Amino acid sequence: MNYKIGVVDTTFARVDMGSLAIRELEKHSDADIVRVTVPGMKDLAVACKKLLDGGCDACLAIAMVGPHRLDETCAHEANAGIMGAQLMTNKHILSVFVHEVEADNDKDLYDICVNRVTKHALNAYLLVANPGELAKNAGMGKRQGRADAGPMVIE
Amino acid sequence: MNYKIGVVDTTFARVDMGSLAIRELEKHSDADIVRVTVPGMKDLAVACKKLLDGGCDACLAIAMVGPHRLDETCAHEANAGIMGAQLMTNKHILSVFVHEVEADNDKDLYDICVNRVTKHALNAYLLVANPGELAKNAGMGKRQGRADAGPMVIE
Amino acid sequence: MNYKIGVVDTTFARVDMGSLAIRELEKHSDADIVRVTVPGMKDLAVACKKLLDGGCDACLAIAMVGPHRLDETCAHEANAGIMGAQLMTNKHILSVFVHEVEADNDKDLYDICVNRVTKHALNAYLLVANPGELAKNAGMGKRQGRADAGPMVIE
Amino acid sequence: MNYKIGVVDTTFARVDMGSLAIRELEKHSDADIVRVTVPGMKDLAVACKKLLDGGCDACLAIAMVGPHRLDETCAHEANAGIMGAQLMTNKHILSVFVHEVEADNDKDLYDICVNRVTKHALNAYLLVANPGELAKNAGMGKRQGRADAGPMVIE
Amino acid sequence: MNYKIGVVDTTFARVDMGSLAIRELEKHSDADIVRVTVPGMKDLAVACKKLLDGGCDACLAIAMVGPHRLDETCAHEANAGIMGAQLMTNKHILSVFVHEVEADNDKDLYDICVNRVTKHALNAYLLVANPGELAKNAGMGKRQGRADAGPMVIE
Repeated sequence: MNYKIGVVDTTFARVDMGSLAIRELEKHSDADIVRVTVPGMKDLAVACKKLLDGGCDACLAIAMVGPHRLDETCAHEANAGIMGAQLMTNKHILSVFVHEVEADNDKDLYDICVNRVTKHALNAYLLVANPGELAKNAGMGKRQGRADAGPMVIE
Repeated sequence: MNYKIGVVDTTFARVDMGSLAIRELEKHSDADIVRVTVPGMKDLAVACKKLLDGGCDACLAIAMVGPHRLDETCAHEANAGIMGAQLMTNKHILSVFVHEVEADNDKDLYDICVNRVTKHALNAYLLVANPGELAKNAGMGKRQGRADAGPMVIE
Repeated sequence: MNYKIGVVDTTFARVDMGSLAIRELEKHSDADIVRVTVPGMKDLAVACKKLLDGGCDACLAIAMVGPHRLDETCAHEANAGIMGAQLMTNKHILSVFVHEVEADNDKDLYDICVNRVTKHALNAYLLVANPGELAKNAGMGKRQGRADAGPMVIE
Repeated sequence: MNYKIGVVDTTFARVDMGSLAIRELEKHSDADIVRVTVPGMKDLAVACKKLLDGGCDACLAIAMVGPHRLDETCAHEANAGIMGAQLMTNKHILSVFVHEVEADNDKDLYDICVNRVTKHALNAYLLVANPGELAKNAGMGKRQGRADAGPMVIE
Repeated sequence: MNYKIGVVDTTFARVDMGSLAIRELEKHSDADIVRVTVPGMKDLAVACKKLLDGGCDACLAIAMVGPHRLDETCAHEANAGIMGAQLMTNKHILSVFVHEVEADNDKDLYDICVNRVTKHALNAYLLVANPGELAKNAGMGKRQGRADAGPMVIE
């Protein structure tokens, strides 16, 4: 049985994050990939919902968030919609947002994109194909975008 | 087959943004246009929803946002409603909001209006008529309102 | 054919804004008016929804917002509910909120109330009885509460 | 005919506000009271919804809000849920939240609790049993928690 | 009759909070436990909803919130989703979020985790198995994470 995973990204992003996700998902021979591109992050939720209603098992909603206050408000609205789409479909949408304010410079921003998209593409696959793999890492301080924080060690 | 696109704007805006959208959409002979005007931006969501329930394939929700904090709160509430309307109809509503705080002066504000409305009118058409055209621009740093940021170039 | 319009106001307001709305609506012989009063602004949304479900074609949700930060949060929650009620009923609810922080003093606050309620009562009527009249004013910088801003004039 | 009113409060609150509400409701012989206690304010919405789905005509959602920023965020989330529960049931839930930041000291906080809970318990009863009584006080500057502001007097 | 309680936690957390919840729930012989682990806190709501739709009587949604502003926004979005999932299922989801900003250091953070998770695991059990036990503590200033505040004492 194959798993159908939707990859939705934007023309707004300055990095082709959708292709990064697809490259990771293609490592799994039982993953079928559907890609859709929308203009901006507020268009992700309904695009994901349509894919999930159409048979996808999970989606990645991938966006780059500009540096201004209005961009942050947009990101919040986009994520609220992604939340609603999940509850309406009973399926996971992993929100993969990279905020320009997280990065020191473009190189750093690019590295965050690669790290976060790749790890969350694997997470999306595991959520539908092998959730037990995630359970093994409960409370392990996993991070997407930077190195893992790791589990807390109390002396 | 024709595509039916709703254009909803406000009497609050100081620029006739709805007509700018229609001018762009009329370049596409297979686009049928329905225009509705409401008082303010918080009235856009239900007006769009009614158009989408009535057969429109996509909508443009067009507004100008005043400079005060209360205006920004209104814009957030309006966008939350537009998000909900999309999820309830499984159709795209492109939110085309121009904020007075984005502009240096009225001329600049007008230019942002023309640029953003025109580009998003094309985006609305492409979303329903030719989504593959958007996919070609995934991650290309497209902007509406100003010049494109373009894709990131890492040396 | 008559249009049934709901007027919902609060006991919290310090001005009888509901009566101001009714005075304006009564100028239109084809408007049937139903009035309901609730304690505060967070009670408006469900009261409007009940009226719309019960046959009203549109509603006015009328409130005065106190000057404290908690009042603003309440207003935001109230407006989110009004947005939801519109999407659930496919009918317009015009949110007519007057914030104490908008005014210099009580006289100014009263004038804003009269201006905003009266103009939005007419808007509510036009939305259901004569939407073409609103279309004529698209982008004309209409305001409720103060004088119109008017359309932008670029030299 | 009797009116069934739900009283939902929390173990978090430092005052037994639910009992204050019940004491007021018991003055009305046609009010049947159902009480439920949940851990915190974010648990109120679904508890109220279950009561309303189960036959209650209205609910009081009663909470005390701690003094920290995170408490205020919780209160906002709780109120958003209460708003949603009202729209889903077409019934009123009066949100009776007392914020520690409103009070100068514990005695003051207690007085606010008594005043707000008592008045809103009456409001909940009137909303279902005698809404005309609320209509008489439209725009009269009624307050819960402190003395009424009263109607505006313009000289 | 047994009670089925879902425990949903994250790989993001730096403490295995899910296991702490299970340890507490296992003290009750009539509690059946289902555990699911998701990547981050915004994935909790739909995971809980799926468990509740699948027969769980209540859920614990357990997360650790990072110290940055973006983490707080995520937590707010996650809690809004948890609220929605409760209203859609008519079942309780106890949100058990521990914020890094609450703690002075890692040891303190760990102690908060143990205290909050344990107490809320008991609360989840009581909500479905013995709600009368919660009613006894109405207004008693119960806290999860720190010592109880206790009921207010007015001299």
